[in-house]
Amino acid sequence: MIRVDGRKTDQLRDITIVRGWQEHAEGSALISAGLTRVLCAASVTEGVPRWRKGSGLGWVTAEYSMLPRATHTRNDRESVRGRIGGRTHEISRLIGRSLRAAIDLKALGENTIAIDCDVLLADGGTRTAAITGAYVALADACRWLGRPSAIVTSVCAVSVGIVKGVPMLDLAYAEDSTADTDMNVVCTGAGGFVEVQGTAEGTPFDRAALDELLDLATAGCTRLTEIQNVALAQPAPAGPPRPERALPGAKSAGSR
Amino acid sequence: MIRVDGRKTDQLRDITIVRGWQEHAEGSALISAGLTRVLCAASVTEGVPRWRKGSGLGWVTAEYSMLPRATHTRNDRESVRGRIGGRTHEISRLIGRSLRAAIDLKALGENTIAIDCDVLLADGGTRTAAITGAYVALADACRWLGRPSAIVTSVCAVSVGIVKGVPMLDLAYAEDSTADTDMNVVCTGAGGFVEVQGTAEGTPFDRAALDELLDLATAGCTRLTEIQNVALAQPAPAGPPRPERALPGAKSAGSR
Amino acid sequence: MIRVDGRKTDQLRDITIVRGWQEHAEGSALISAGLTRVLCAASVTEGVPRWRKGSGLGWVTAEYSMLPRATHTRNDRESVRGRIGGRTHEISRLIGRSLRAAIDLKALGENTIAIDCDVLLADGGTRTAAITGAYVALADACRWLGRPSAIVTSVCAVSVGIVKGVPMLDLAYAEDSTADTDMNVVCTGAGGFVEVQGTAEGTPFDRAALDELLDLATAGCTRLTEIQNVALAQPAPAGPPRPERALPGAKSAGSR
Amino acid sequence: MIRVDGRKTDQLRDITIVRGWQEHAEGSALISAGLTRVLCAASVTEGVPRWRKGSGLGWVTAEYSMLPRATHTRNDRESVRGRIGGRTHEISRLIGRSLRAAIDLKALGENTIAIDCDVLLADGGTRTAAITGAYVALADACRWLGRPSAIVTSVCAVSVGIVKGVPMLDLAYAEDSTADTDMNVVCTGAGGFVEVQGTAEGTPFDRAALDELLDLATAGCTRLTEIQNVALAQPAPAGPPRPERALPGAKSAGSR
Amino acid sequence: MIRVDGRKTDQLRDITIVRGWQEHAEGSALISAGLTRVLCAASVTEGVPRWRKGSGLGWVTAEYSMLPRATHTRNDRESVRGRIGGRTHEISRLIGRSLRAAIDLKALGENTIAIDCDVLLADGGTRTAAITGAYVALADACRWLGRPSAIVTSVCAVSVGIVKGVPMLDLAYAEDSTADTDMNVVCTGAGGFVEVQGTAEGTPFDRAALDELLDLATAGCTRLTEIQNVALAQPAPAGPPRPERALPGAKSAGSR
Amino acid sequence: MIRVDGRKTDQLRDITIVRGWQEHAEGSALISAGLTRVLCAASVTEGVPRWRKGSGLGWVTAEYSMLPRATHTRNDRESVRGRIGGRTHEISRLIGRSLRAAIDLKALGENTIAIDCDVLLADGGTRTAAITGAYVALADACRWLGRPSAIVTSVCAVSVGIVKGVPMLDLAYAEDSTADTDMNVVCTGAGGFVEVQGTAEGTPFDRAALDELLDLATAGCTRLTEIQNVALAQPAPAGPPRPERALPGAKSAGSR
Repeated sequence: MIRVDGRKTDQLRDITIVRGWQEHAEGSALISAGLTRVLCAASVTEGVPRWRKGSGLGWVTAEYSMLPRATHTRNDRESVRGRIGGRTHEISRLIGRSLRAAIDLKALGENTIAIDCDVLLADGGTRTAAITGAYVALADACRWLGRPSAIVTSVCAVSVGIVKGVPMLDLAYAEDSTADTDMNVVCTGAGGFVEVQGTAEGTPFDRAALDELLDLATAGCTRLTEIQNVALAQPAPAGPPRPERALPGAKSAGSR
Repeated sequence: MIRVDGRKTDQLRDITIVRGWQEHAEGSALISAGLTRVLCAASVTEGVPRWRKGSGLGWVTAEYSMLPRATHTRNDRESVRGRIGGRTHEISRLIGRSLRAAIDLKALGENTIAIDCDVLLADGGTRTAAITGAYVALADACRWLGRPSAIVTSVCAVSVGIVKGVPMLDLAYAEDSTADTDMNVVCTGAGGFVEVQGTAEGTPFDRAALDELLDLATAGCTRLTEIQNVALAQPAPAGPPRPERALPGAKSAGSR
Repeated sequence: MIRVDGRKTDQLRDITIVRGWQEHAEGSALISAGLTRVLCAASVTEGVPRWRKGSGLGWVTAEYSMLPRATHTRNDRESVRGRIGGRTHEISRLIGRSLRAAIDLKALGENTIAIDCDVLLADGGTRTAAITGAYVALADACRWLGRPSAIVTSVCAVSVGIVKGVPMLDLAYAEDSTADTDMNVVCTGAGGFVEVQGTAEGTPFDRAALDELLDLATAGCTRLTEIQNVALAQPAPAGPPRPERALPGAKSAGSR
Repeated sequence: MIRVDGRKTDQLRDITIVRGWQEHAEGSALISAGLTRVLCAASVTEGVPRWRKGSGLGWVTAEYSMLPRATHTRNDRESVRGRIGGRTHEISRLIGRSLRAAIDLKALGENTIAIDCDVLLADGGTRTAAITGAYVALADACRWLGRPSAIVTSVCAVSVGIVKGVPMLDLAYAEDSTADTDMNVVCTGAGGFVEVQGTAEGTPFDRAALDELLDLATAGCTRLTEIQNVALAQPAPAGPPRPERALPGAKSAGSR
Repeated sequence: MIRVDGRKTDQLRDITIVRGWQEHAEGSALISAGLTRVLCAASVTEGVPRWRKGSGLGWVTAEYSMLPRATHTRNDRESVRGRIGGRTHEISRLIGRSLRAAIDLKALGENTIAIDCDVLLADGGTRTAAITGAYVALADACRWLGRPSAIVTSVCAVSVGIVKGVPMLDLAYAEDSTADTDMNVVCTGAGGFVEVQGTAEGTPFDRAALDELLDLATAGCTRLTEIQNVALAQPAPAGPPRPERALPGAKSAGSR
Repeated sequence: MIRVDGRKTDQLRDITIVRGWQEHAEGSALISAGLTRVLCAASVTEGVPRWRKGSGLGWVTAEYSMLPRATHTRNDRESVRGRIGGRTHEISRLIGRSLRAAIDLKALGENTIAIDCDVLLADGGTRTAAITGAYVALADACRWLGRPSAIVTSVCAVSVGIVKGVPMLDLAYAEDSTADTDMNVVCTGAGGFVEVQGTAEGTPFDRAALDELLDLATAGCTRLTEIQNVALAQPAPAGPPRPERALPGAKSAGSR
């Protein structure tokens, strides 16, 4: 079966990752997956939230948002409405949990990394693209901080779904909006599952369908991990100047 | 292995469902699962949200909340904080999606059923207990409305997780808070999956663990379906008086 | 004159008080007055608000809320609307003032007791039932804290009103909504007035009517005090485990 | 006994009422009671809230607020805090109920009058001064509307309290803040009670004290009614231009 | 050309400034400019915001608001809407910046002066009247604080605009609402510009028009400075009692 | 004098404008001015706000926002804080007013164009870059709509300021943050002023300085107009598909 955009059912869209796109951030990446475009920034601040002080552990948090005209029709800004919507909350929490799986919070020391994922253009799979791109920004932020070993595994994500009875990898918006079942899967570079979220939009799905989708997702994540690794093998972008005083626990300002 | 409360790993907590607990509601159920206690109410209103008018389809929506002292320490009210938290949003959306899987929205006609799930006492598994209880309230509301055929399947939910390496069914709070992986599974009475949401809290989980958890959850849902059926086989509670004018599309006020 | 539900004009509805209904709270009571059902929880926390620190005095505060479907038609949640309504504010303040009249804040020490009154089912008189039930939860919380002497008097409340020209005690919703004048009266166990709030809904009332209503309310509060005393004469519910370290000022952990 | 400001216990502060102070409003009054100064405006709009349409009845609503520096120390604006406080809500509701007692909503026709009471300077008794002044603004608004008969009675209010054991009329801030019991009483010009709100700040009060306070308040309201009548006997301020098209139900544009 | 209210094009409206109108404030002024009436209060508090602590510098901030019925038709309160509107924000910021130009923050010491400008009646030019009046309140507050030298210059403001092709000074509402271009100009007593904000409402304006407007504004501000000086040459109002302990940096409590 | 980045005092930063960057929008432009990067989108919707219906006039509105990590240190999201800040409000209003100067609202017909300006990277001059870029997006949206004649003039903007005594064009952040005076000037393509907003940050400025700044700004805007014209002379990006039914008032769907 050939899909609307000519892909095979087990084929990812074209993925590109540009590191350092937001020059002021300690780590950043602009990820494109077809017409989906997400800007991910990792901001390092010294110290941790109050409830965590003195624990010796760091913290990683995430916020997801969409520009009003990322989508086919304009959405009101959540800042103007005065409240964060349920979908935004849910995705922000998913991204945060997923990235914390990549990190050894002890090795991070009492530093906080805030990840911002802003969707500039949306064509399905924005949350999974956000996770995949955010990992790259996070890795650069850890390097900037002189703590590359805080990264214990890479993390990436992909969507899968059953469209008109056919299981497919990496759904575009036109596919996603007509899918019977869709699932988002977050994996480590080693292939372990961090999150599995499957939803029957129409008829319930059975164990066999679930298994097929997991196979597709696992293969897709293997490919995404390679793409992340290629991107991170390039020389690191300059990033902002490092503070003169070393952040707590950093071995040496020159260790980067 | 025996669990803290003496259960076997594949054993549900004691479940009780009291129908009609909130006398003014068109359908209601107080569900207890061990020390977890959730009051579920289904409110019928004629008409549908504006974006749905003229479609001939009904709508089902859900809101989840927790009393401030449902938990071991008191939580501030979201009404006082002035905003709904991410967790509340996420669970409300999950309940709504799950219950819509039980309903033929066309057979419901242009009526709206709002489900409220208020946790009176919390000891783990509040979202899954909410779904299981809300289905009973929903079924009664459809009967009250004279549209029992709008229910196309029953829906129930249960949590499973891996605690100290052991897969377990229906986690209590003490288990849930130390689980490596936890998963919420929503099934239809026929055993189809409506939602599968698995999260690695610590180390990622592999395919084998996922399979074990799905087996446990499927068996648990089979048992919950029986409990729901027993509860619904009792005579229906009186419910509030029906409006004199039939709601749109109801065959006959006496068909209940 | 016989009332809709067969009561005499000076007769309370059936009142039941179940202590310890919310197992995690330091004090709790589920009070029913006819079809009105309010869950009251008293939460103890060590310390007082900042403006009170170092004063040696404790603090008691209260919040009132109603489940969306406690009423005949569903009300939107205040958490969803993003703000507390005027009625909720007003009643929360009334409950807080009333309960502080029961307490010697010096004997309480620098501890805070937060009272939550959540209306699970509403049929008139929810604010007065909340006060009557909350006193029981408060008394149990003071015992739990090892400071029973912080309670200097009991407090209870009842509504009275003039319905079709007839003064009546403890109005049900059907009566309250057609009353010309309604009044809420909060008394101590010794018969002193803590609050008197009378409102003419239609024609103004005169001094003679006011006197009749106060007589009815005083007699009703005498009866409610007896019911509270009977409930509190039962053995105390277990309550949550006490902290190992004594809270400040407690004579002895075993004094309860 | 002579009070701090030299008044006798049954003596009002100096009261002045300036009509038409806010030139754009259909009715307005600046009322001073000693150092308490409240600007009251009555705004007429054609039509009623949706839930009232077609009833033939009008509506009267009220909002109370305080300028940040009306008080001895500055209070944050509620607009900046983003929410109305409980005290503001409670007083706004009291003013609205009190003024509706003055009005025949049928004679008002389907028009809405919004009363704004803004405290410019505060020295105790702001809510009662607001009611007394707002009545004058309301009466002028009804005249402006060509519906003077919508006013069925005048309404005024005064505070009373027990300070150091002595019952007193019209408490200034220094008295109010040390009172054991304080009570706000709203009366019609004919002496009927519209609202009676008594609160024991310290020890509970008994029936005899309540009776003494009611006697003081009733006498005070008789005097306030005279002051209102004197003010309203002056020629009416010009008010804004009347709309060319008569508002619904107005007999004649020239009848004012 | 004669204007609607008979003024010449370069003529201010009647300006009056009453100092000490809000008796509790450290400085206050009620300014009238024709039918525009703004109450300005300056509140002194010891200390500065956190970000400024230890700098030795003081802080001046401002908030602008309008009573609901200051205008021809009633506006909803921003406190009720739950958010500050853009216009309010913009004007508050303008007033704050303008007044900070009058102050030597070092000579003020670590004290904060909060300026509240509340429009009681509006007929155009409310923001410029607010600045002109607020300066007087600020000057009195500095005197009260024993730091008159913190005032380094006076500040006043006026509006100018082009109405039907004619440049005019100090626009009333009827003029402002039909102006092609309107401009607000804030000047020091010495004639320097603090703010120049010109906006083309209809057709763009050219350099010649801009020059004419600046000439008018400069002359108007010269006149306003004289009016401010006359007002401040009167004996200072009493103001609230000064704290016994001198505020930090005050030379002497008697130096005022 | 040579500036930090080597520019002359009257030299713009490198400006690039990429049209159609946000593929779903009816008009969009990514504008860069040095390290300042703003994504501008113009969204067309049929119809106008309620207060404008039936007038035959269209409407143009604008919203400005900044990504959290556009700046050197991360700023909290306004959506998370739950309110729009004063600066955001002020800039959104400025952009809206400026763009409405470019449009013949009658020729636009009863259509609304919402402009979103999101700052992806900030290095000073974000509001002026937003206006310059937004005009390009607006022009494309009018073409897409088949109403190119709704554009009556181009509009662009630039900042100028006095840094260490030297008047300069197009300030970068490092210059802006140390400027004594800074001014934003919005001009039409024909050189008319739409907005002039000058602020003395430190010492007031005099007429001569104002004149110098206006000269610089006028020359800068002439250059920006050329850059806009070059960009718009390229073939238009495809834009989203046009609705089959012509929007109201469009001459012909093919007229674009």
